[in-house]
Amino acid sequence: MRLLLNSRRAVFAEFVGTAILIMAVVGSGIAAQRLTADIGLQLLINAVATVLALGVLIALFLPISGAHFNPVVSAVMLVRRDLSVGLAGAYVVAQVAGGALGTLISHAMYDRSLVSTFDGDRSEAGLWLGEIIATAGLVLVVLLASREVVAVAVPAWIGAAYFFTSSTSFANPAVTIARALTDSFSGIRWEDVPWFVLAQLLGGAIAIVLARSLKEMP
Amino acid sequence: MRLLLNSRRAVFAEFVGTAILIMAVVGSGIAAQRLTADIGLQLLINAVATVLALGVLIALFLPISGAHFNPVVSAVMLVRRDLSVGLAGAYVVAQVAGGALGTLISHAMYDRSLVSTFDGDRSEAGLWLGEIIATAGLVLVVLLASREVVAVAVPAWIGAAYFFTSSTSFANPAVTIARALTDSFSGIRWEDVPWFVLAQLLGGAIAIVLARSLKEMP
Amino acid sequence: MRLLLNSRRAVFAEFVGTAILIMAVVGSGIAAQRLTADIGLQLLINAVATVLALGVLIALFLPISGAHFNPVVSAVMLVRRDLSVGLAGAYVVAQVAGGALGTLISHAMYDRSLVSTFDGDRSEAGLWLGEIIATAGLVLVVLLASREVVAVAVPAWIGAAYFFTSSTSFANPAVTIARALTDSFSGIRWEDVPWFVLAQLLGGAIAIVLARSLKEMP
Amino acid sequence: MRLLLNSRRAVFAEFVGTAILIMAVVGSGIAAQRLTADIGLQLLINAVATVLALGVLIALFLPISGAHFNPVVSAVMLVRRDLSVGLAGAYVVAQVAGGALGTLISHAMYDRSLVSTFDGDRSEAGLWLGEIIATAGLVLVVLLASREVVAVAVPAWIGAAYFFTSSTSFANPAVTIARALTDSFSGIRWEDVPWFVLAQLLGGAIAIVLARSLKEMP
Repeated sequence: MRLLLNSRRAVFAEFVGTAILIMAVVGSGIAAQRLTADIGLQLLINAVATVLALGVLIALFLPISGAHFNPVVSAVMLVRRDLSVGLAGAYVVAQVAGGALGTLISHAMYDRSLVSTFDGDRSEAGLWLGEIIATAGLVLVVLLASREVVAVAVPAWIGAAYFFTSSTSFANPAVTIARALTDSFSGIRWEDVPWFVLAQLLGGAIAIVLARSLKEMP
Repeated sequence: MRLLLNSRRAVFAEFVGTAILIMAVVGSGIAAQRLTADIGLQLLINAVATVLALGVLIALFLPISGAHFNPVVSAVMLVRRDLSVGLAGAYVVAQVAGGALGTLISHAMYDRSLVSTFDGDRSEAGLWLGEIIATAGLVLVVLLASREVVAVAVPAWIGAAYFFTSSTSFANPAVTIARALTDSFSGIRWEDVPWFVLAQLLGGAIAIVLARSLKEMP
Repeated sequence: MRLLLNSRRAVFAEFVGTAILIMAVVGSGIAAQRLTADIGLQLLINAVATVLALGVLIALFLPISGAHFNPVVSAVMLVRRDLSVGLAGAYVVAQVAGGALGTLISHAMYDRSLVSTFDGDRSEAGLWLGEIIATAGLVLVVLLASREVVAVAVPAWIGAAYFFTSSTSFANPAVTIARALTDSFSGIRWEDVPWFVLAQLLGGAIAIVLARSLKEMP
Repeated sequence: MRLLLNSRRAVFAEFVGTAILIMAVVGSGIAAQRLTADIGLQLLINAVATVLALGVLIALFLPISGAHFNPVVSAVMLVRRDLSVGLAGAYVVAQVAGGALGTLISHAMYDRSLVSTFDGDRSEAGLWLGEIIATAGLVLVVLLASREVVAVAVPAWIGAAYFFTSSTSFANPAVTIARALTDSFSGIRWEDVPWFVLAQLLGGAIAIVLARSLKEMP
C-alpha cells in the first residue's frame, strides 16, 4: 500500500478531508442549536451530518491517502509499518491543520468570530472511558473491516458511538483539537483536550491487542 | 462452515461482539433519557445506535464466528447441524457473559452503579406475541438472506421491529438477560425474562418451519 | 423469470411478505402514536419501520416470488407478460389476504380489537394526485432499476414519498385495504379506498408509458 | 460516454428527474411544516425525503443521461468535454423547466396556488459561503467518486450539507429557481437567486481545481 501512495497528494488529501470532516461536525452542531431546542434532536442532526460526510470522504479519499483523517489511525498504521515515520508525521500535521481550518470556515459560514473557546465541562472519568471505547471500536473496525465495507463500517461505528458512549465519541485527536476552537454545541475546553487524547491513544492500543487476538488466537 | 471456524477465536468473538452490542443498546438508552423528554425520540436514538453497531459487528465478525451474538441463532445453527453441541454451548455462555459485561461497562461510562434492577412491567401477552414475531423474523432473515446482504438485512430487520413490535424487539435471550441488569430505559424485570426467552425460542422454531416452506414447498 | 418461479412457494411468499409489510406499517403507526405527540416524529417512525422492513422483505423474497407485495406491481408484470393471468390473480388474492392478516396480528400485539374502522377524511383531490405520483414513481423504479439495486431503490422511493406526497404514499391496493381495517394512525375509511386504488392503477399506467419513453425514445 | 447517450432520451430523463427531485424537495418541505412545529425536525424530514429521492433518481437515470439534474454539473461536464455545447444547453433548459414543473405539481398535491413567492431573507454573506462549500463538495464527489458509489455518495453529501452548511445546501441553480416559485419552507426570494447561482458556479470551479490537485499532484 505504501508504494501506491503519492506522498504530497496523500498529505494534501488528509488536509482537505479533515477540514471537510470538521466542517460537518462543527457546522452541523451550530445549525442544530439554531434549529431546535431538543438536545436529543440536536445530537441526531449532528450525528447524521457527521456520519454522511465521513462516509463520502472515506469513499473518495481511500485510494488517495487511506482516508485516515485521524492521528490515532495514522499512529496505528505506523505501528503496523503501513506508513513511514516521515509520512505519518506529515499526516498528523495535515490533519490538525485541516481540522483547525474546518472550524474557522464553519464559523465564517455562520458569521461567528473565527475562533472561540468552550466553557462546558468534559472532565469526568466516565467520559474518558467513553473515549477509550469509542476509539478502540473505531480502530478495531479499521483493522478488521475489508476494504469493500470500510467506507460504510467506519461511519456506522461513529454514528452508533455518538449515542452510546458517554463522551459522544470524539475518538480523534485532530477532531478534538479542532473542537477546542469553538464555543458551540460540539466544543471542548482546552484543559480537557489532553485527557481525551490520552484516552484515544489508549483505545487505539487496546484495539491493536484485540484485533490480534481475533485474527490470530489459536 | 464448521471447519473454517477456529473455536477459541470464534467463542472470543461472540463474547466481544455481544458485549459491544449491549453497550450500544444499554448505553444509548441511558444517553437517550438524558438527551430528550420525547419517548419517541428516545427510542429512535436507541434504535439508530443499535442498528448501526449491529451492522458493523456482523460485517466484522461474520468470518470469525458467524456473528450470532444471540443464543436463539446459535440454537438454530445447532438444529441445522452448522454448529456442534459443544461449540453451541460455549457460544451461549460467551454471549450471556459478554452481554452482562456490556451492561456493566455502559453503567461505568455513565457513572451509575454497575448493576441495578428495572421495575417497569413488561408482562402483557401482547409483548410476548411481539417477541415471537420479532425473533421469527430475525431467524427468517438469518436463514434466507445471502451472505452478501446479511450484515445489512439483520440490522434492518431489528430496526424495523424496534418500532412495529409491541415489545420493541429484544429478540435475543443474551440481550434480555443483559437488560435485566439495568434500571435504565432499556431494562426488564427478572420475573419477565423467562417469558421473553420462551417467546423468543418459539419465534425461532416458527422461523425454521417458515423458512423450510419458503425454500422447499413443491 | 416465469419459469424459475415455483408457483405455490411464490404465492405463499407473497402472502407472508405482505403480512409482514403490513405489520410494519400498521404496528409502527400504533407504536408511534403511543410514543410521541409530535406528528412529524410519528410519521418518521412509521416511515423508518416501513422502509427497513420493505428492504429486508425484497432482499429475501426477490428470488422466490419477485417480491411484489402489491397488486399494481403484479398487474404491471401481467401487462409485460412476466406473469400469467392465473398466477397474477393468485398473487393479488395472497397479497390482500396477507395484508388483512397483518393488520389483525398488529392489533393483537397491541391488545386492540382485531378489526376496527378509521374515521379520518382522506378524500381530497390533492391526495389522489399524491397517490398517482407515489405509485407512478414506485412502478418506474420497479421497471428501471437493476436487480442488484431494487431492494434498496424501492424502499428508498417509498421512504421519500412518505414525506413528499400529500397522501403519505399508500401506493398499493393491498396495503390500502389492510389499512381500512384499523382505526389507528395509518388507517383509511372504506369509502376512500376505491379512489385511492383507482389513483394507484392510473399511476401504474403512467409509469409504463414513462418507462417506455425513457428506455426506447429514439 | 458521450457516444452512448441517446440525446432525446437523455434530455427527457433530465427533465423528468429534475421534476421528481423538486417534488421531493418542495413537497416534503410543505409536508414538514404541516406535521411538526420543530424546525429541526422539519429540516430532517426535508433532508430525508430529498436524499432518498436523489439516490433513487441517480441509480435509475445514470445510464440514461448521467443523472445531472443540475446545471453546475452539466457545466463541469462541458468543461471536461464529456458533454457537447448543444447537449449541455438542452440539459440546462430541461433541468430548469423540469424543476419548475416539480414545484407546480407539489403545490397541486397540497391544494396550494400553483406558483407563489417567498419572502424570507436569504442574503447574508455566510449563506453564499455555505453555497460555495456545498456545491464545491458536490462537484468534488461527482469528479472523484467511482461509478459504483456515485448514487450513494452524492445524496450522502447533500444530506450532510443540508445540516452543516449555513444555506442548507441548495447547490443547484435549477433547484434554486424552482424554489423561487414557492412560498413554503424551502422557498427563496427571486432577488437572492442570482447570488446563490453565482456562489454555486464558483463552488463548481473550485471543485475542478481541487479534484485536479487530488488526482494529479506530483
